[in-house]
Order: sequence, then C-alpha cells, then structure tokens
Amino acid sequence: MSKTYTIAVIAGDGIGKEVTPWAQQALEKAAEGVADFTYEPFDLGAERYLRDGAILPDDELERIKKTDAILLGAVGDPRIKAGILERGLLLKLRFALDQYVNLRPSKLYKGVTSPLANPGDIDFVVVREGTEGLYCGAGGAVRRDTPAEVATEVSINTAYGVERVVRYAFELAMKRRKHITLVHKKNVLVNAGDMWQRIVDRVGKEYPEVTHDYSHIDAATIYLVSDPSRFDVILTDNLFGDILTDEAGAVVGGVGYSASGCINASNEYPSMFEPIHGSAPDIAGKGIANPTAAILSAAMLLEHLGFDDAAKKIHTAVEADIEELGSTKRSTEQVGKDILARI
Amino acid sequence: MSKTYTIAVIAGDGIGKEVTPWAQQALEKAAEGVADFTYEPFDLGAERYLRDGAILPDDELERIKKTDAILLGAVGDPRIKAGILERGLLLKLRFALDQYVNLRPSKLYKGVTSPLANPGDIDFVVVREGTEGLYCGAGGAVRRDTPAEVATEVSINTAYGVERVVRYAFELAMKRRKHITLVHKKNVLVNAGDMWQRIVDRVGKEYPEVTHDYSHIDAATIYLVSDPSRFDVILTDNLFGDILTDEAGAVVGGVGYSASGCINASNEYPSMFEPIHGSAPDIAGKGIANPTAAILSAAMLLEHLGFDDAAKKIHTAVEADIEELGSTKRSTEQVGKDILARI
Ligand SMILES: CC(C)[C@H](C(=O)O)[C@@H](O)C(=O)O
Ligand SMILES: CC(C)[C@H](C(=O)O)[C@@H](O)C(=O)O
Repeated sequence: MSKTYTIAVIAGDGIGKEVTPWAQQALEKAAEGVADFTYEPFDLGAERYLRDGAILPDDELERIKKTDAILLGAVGDPRIKAGILERGLLLKLRFALDQYVNLRPSKLYKGVTSPLANPGDIDFVVVREGTEGLYCGAGGAVRRDTPAEVATEVSINTAYGVERVVRYAFELAMKRRKHITLVHKKNVLVNAGDMWQRIVDRVGKEYPEVTHDYSHIDAATIYLVSDPSRFDVILTDNLFGDILTDEAGAVVGGVGYSASGCINASNEYPSMFEPIHGSAPDIAGKGIANPTAAILSAAMLLEHLGFDDAAKKIHTAVEADIEELGSTKRSTEQVGKDILARI
Repeated sequence: MSKTYTIAVIAGDGIGKEVTPWAQQALEKAAEGVADFTYEPFDLGAERYLRDGAILPDDELERIKKTDAILLGAVGDPRIKAGILERGLLLKLRFALDQYVNLRPSKLYKGVTSPLANPGDIDFVVVREGTEGLYCGAGGAVRRDTPAEVATEVSINTAYGVERVVRYAFELAMKRRKHITLVHKKNVLVNAGDMWQRIVDRVGKEYPEVTHDYSHIDAATIYLVSDPSRFDVILTDNLFGDILTDEAGAVVGGVGYSASGCINASNEYPSMFEPIHGSAPDIAGKGIANPTAAILSAAMLLEHLGFDDAAKKIHTAVEADIEELGSTKRSTEQVGKDILARI
C-alpha cells in the first residue's frame, strides 16, 4: 500500500486558481501506485485579504505546518499595496517554515523560443538562500516624510544560514555537472561577501570533484545574456537570487516554464512548490494561463518527497509536450490535458 | 579665447592605459576652438598599489578636487583581493567628490549585434544614485570565521540623497522622451522603497509632462531582455543601478560601447567619466582593446562642461564609425584614428 501525503493547497489569486488544479492532477497521475495525496485547501491571498483582512492567521499557519508539503499557485492583486502580501504571506511562510533553500531550475526546452539570438544549451539551477539577507525585514525609517528622513535596510547573514545552503548546493552539484558559481558582490558588500566566499571555499574542500568559481552579481547578469550555458549550479543570496532567477526566466523563454521550490531541507517543516509566475490579473479568468510551470512545480514536490521516478514522468511529459506543441495557442485546459495524457 | 580646463587623468591599469589617450585626443579635437585642456596625470590603481601600497593618498585626492573633471580608464588586477581598490579608490572618489548621479546611457548602435534576437530600438539612460544605499560601507562582522559568525550590510538611504538624484532624473527626462521608470524592490525593501516612491511621486508633480511608472528590480531584469525599448530614463538606487547597467551593457552588444559618468551635479567637486568596461587583463598589452567607450566618456565629459555641440561631434563620429566599420576587426589605434578622422 502506498503512503498518503497531506498537501496544503494555496491556489491563491488570479491564474493561481486556474493552474493549481492541473498541478494536483499531474501529481496524482505521476505518483499513481507509489503515493496518495489528500489535499487541504487554504483560502489565502489577495481575495481573502480584501474580504476579511486576514493574511496568514496563526491557526492556519499551524495547520500548514502539519502538512507534508505545500502547493502554491500565485498570490497578488494590484489593489493591495506592495509589501503587504509579500511580507505577510509569502515571506512569512518562507521564514516560519525555515525554507532556507529556494531552488529554481532554468532550462531552455526544445520548442521554446528564447529572446536570445544564440541561446545555446541552457540548463542550470539557482540555489538561492531563502531566510536571510535583505529579506529579514530588518530596517526602518526615521523622520518619515520629512526632508530629513533616513530609511535603512539591513542584510543579516549568518554562518549558520549560509553554510546549510552552501552544503545543499554542493550535494546538488554532485548530482549534476559538478560546477558551482557563487554569485555575490564581494567587492562592495565585503562583510557578507567575504563570509560567503570563505564558507564556499571551506565546504568545497569536502567535495573535491566539484569545481567552483565566483562572479559578481553585475557580471552574472551579463553572462545570463551572453553565455548562459556556462552555468550549472548558481549559488547566491536571497536578493541576488531573486534578481537572477527572473532574468533567467526571461532568457529561457518566459516565466511560463519555470517552477520553484522553497525547501526546508532538514524536513522540520513542509516545503513549498510554486510556478514562478505571478497571479497575472490581466489574463485571469480567460482560461488561457499556461499551467506548465505549475505542473513542473508538482514534479519538484515529488522529487522533494523522494519520488524521483514519478517526477521524471512529469518532466518527460512536459518536455515532449513543449517540443511538439509548445508554439501552438492552447487553453489552460488543453495544455493540462495534453500533458496529463503523456504522463 | 577659449577657456582652459584642467582634467585629472587616471588611466589606471591594463587596457585603461591603452584607451585613455584616445579619449583625450577625442576631447581635444571635438572641443577645438571652444575649450582647451591641460592634463594632470595621476598614477593610481592596481599597479601603483602593488608597487608602493598607496591607494588614494590624501594629498592626491586634494589635488584631484581642484581639477575641473576626471577622465578614468579602468582600475583592477586579479592579484588584488576584491574590495580593496573598489572601496579604497573608485568608491572613495565617488563618495569624497559627492558624485551622486551615476549616469549610464545604453544605446544599441546601428552596426552592433545585440545578443537579443529582436532587440528593437534601445536608447535609455540609467540614473543610478551614487553615494548611498548598500555602498556606504556600513556593516560589519562578529565572530568572524566561527560557526556563530554574523555579517551585516546596511543600506542607508536619505531623503536628501534620494531627492537630489530624483530631481536630476526628471530634468533629464524633460530633455528626452519624458518617461521615468523607478526601479526598486519596494515589496520587500519596504522602508527604502517606500521613501523612493514617495519622493518620485512628490517631485513628479512638478513635472506634469513627465510620466513615471515603477518596476521591481527582478521584473526590470526581465524587461531588459524581453522589451528594452520600453525604457527612457531608469531611476534607481546604487546597487540596483550597478546590476541593471551591466545587464543593459550586455543587451546593447557589450560593454565596449558604454560609457558612464559619476556626476556631482551641484559642481562642488569634479565629476568623473569612464568607460564601463574594466581593465581586462586578458587582452591588456595586445593593442586590441576597443577605445570607443573611452571616447564616449570624453563626450559625456564635454556635455557635463556644457559643450553640447562638441559632445555631439563625438557622438556623430562614433555612430558613423560603428555603423560602417563596427564589425571589422581593428586595433585600438585603428579605431581611435578612424573615429578621430570623423570628428
Ligand atoms: C513576491 C516577492 C516577495 C518574491 C521575492 O522577492 O522573493 C518573488 O519575487 C519571488 O522571487 O519569489
Ligand atoms: C567596481 C565596482 C565597485 C563598481 C560598482 O559596483 O559600482 C562597478 O561595478 C561599477 O558599476 O562601476
């Protein structure tokens, strides 16, 4: 008998609600016979907030903590001031569940047109730290709205927090092409950058097969455009990871094909999987959102739970679908059905 | 009789020394009859540091302060630990001379191949704040090199510092296509981001002809790849500006065609003009570095001193040169001569 996992489902807003059911279906079909899933839906996101002002009530967070993993669609609505849902819901989940590895694969699928004239083979993963840096919420403002206002943002970086994500990156590199590029800005952010570099150098000694080099964040944005094939595993901090993965999404033909995982690699709390696109209010409700990224997030969830073969089924199905039909205009439902049929 | 200006010349290291003489020649030829220049060379950079340990001695800084403008080539050498020359020389100059506007035009010239398949018309300017944010050097480390190490970096942002660069951007937009995109990460860096947005909104009211919108830094890196024509003036902080301008350099076909100015727009101290490329030790000494970006920095210097017609001569010459000969392999000297012949 196969084990049953409880998945918290936060479909969220806009197209999040349209694509998430396809991620669930892909999950089930791919794991048939090896794992069962029950779903616990959570009504969180912009709509909930606009309705009753709740962002992430404590009791709901406690219930989420008890699940085995989280599938997230997308949250956000232009009516809500920037920062409220991001800090109150998304970042709160990442921090409360100590999801210290933000894992973001970028792959240029056959059949997808990159905006680059000569993209080459693109297949790398960004390992972004998820619980430190400028995302801590440390900072403040004095004399707000006066000519003497001072606003600060503090990047907090700990050896504890850096070392665990560095180790994750080296383990991941061992399963891939065995190359890590540390991205930082150590010529300016000398304190944090120096610590990252020292920890990478030290941990790297335990992985003699893995080579590692270094790139400043500014240079890395150039390489993503001029020579993205050079990358295998990019290891970086929270903010630089945010920036690089969006640029990477563009380079591989749009965020419609990119999923991400917010991972608690020590498994004390559930990890969270989501497409990297947002709620896309402009196309919401039209049934045209591409569910591919959401379906790929289901594959990441399966990998995280240890079902590599099941995950592989999804990857193979998605790759075949994109190669054959990637350039045809299809509805959400059609893409979902086409991919499911191949799983 | 034309006025004489004293220009501090910091040719620096590697190809910096090879391209800077061409910037000086372009300066003179373009300004013939309207301005004269005398040069005060400063031996600063990696070579000087390796020779006698000096980075930017106080008396040399004082002499630089008395000049009318600075031409910088490039500084840097892989033998020197990251941060030493950057913080001790480049950033020290920017801060000591209060060069609060870091001006970086990006233009795709006819004759240059962009790595983008469909680049469109690219012609925007990044107005990057130059004296605040994460570049202040605020931050530190405790328990260095232990498992309990904590390293911080503090971004300091003042209404004083933000407002002056915001005003500069609006004035610049009035001379261009009258559109500003503020780039920040206000959904996470809520203190600094909110202050930037409030100041842009307030100053914007004084410029009703200028439209302005907002983009998160992560989204902006996407637009630079997917739709760079949308930008006219990008207004952003010190770190985001660093990142965006390198990506922009790649998108317009490489840093070989991009110059930048570190400008003290109140003219209390000299402003500094430089190609955005580095010292390129790999090609140094071979006589093959492209002097175009350095020559364009001379044009920016002329504009800054008020010689718009002279600057225009350089721009016209460079544009014609690139359009006609941009794809031919030429030596530094040949490119320099070709451009000079057109001025
Ligand atoms: C929405 C925002 C807080 C978030 C981030 O900055 O991490 C997003 O951009 C992402 O990359 O997941
Ligand atoms: C060398 C470095 C300190 C500098 C910066 O980060 O500003 C450079 O990248 C630049 O963009 O001028």
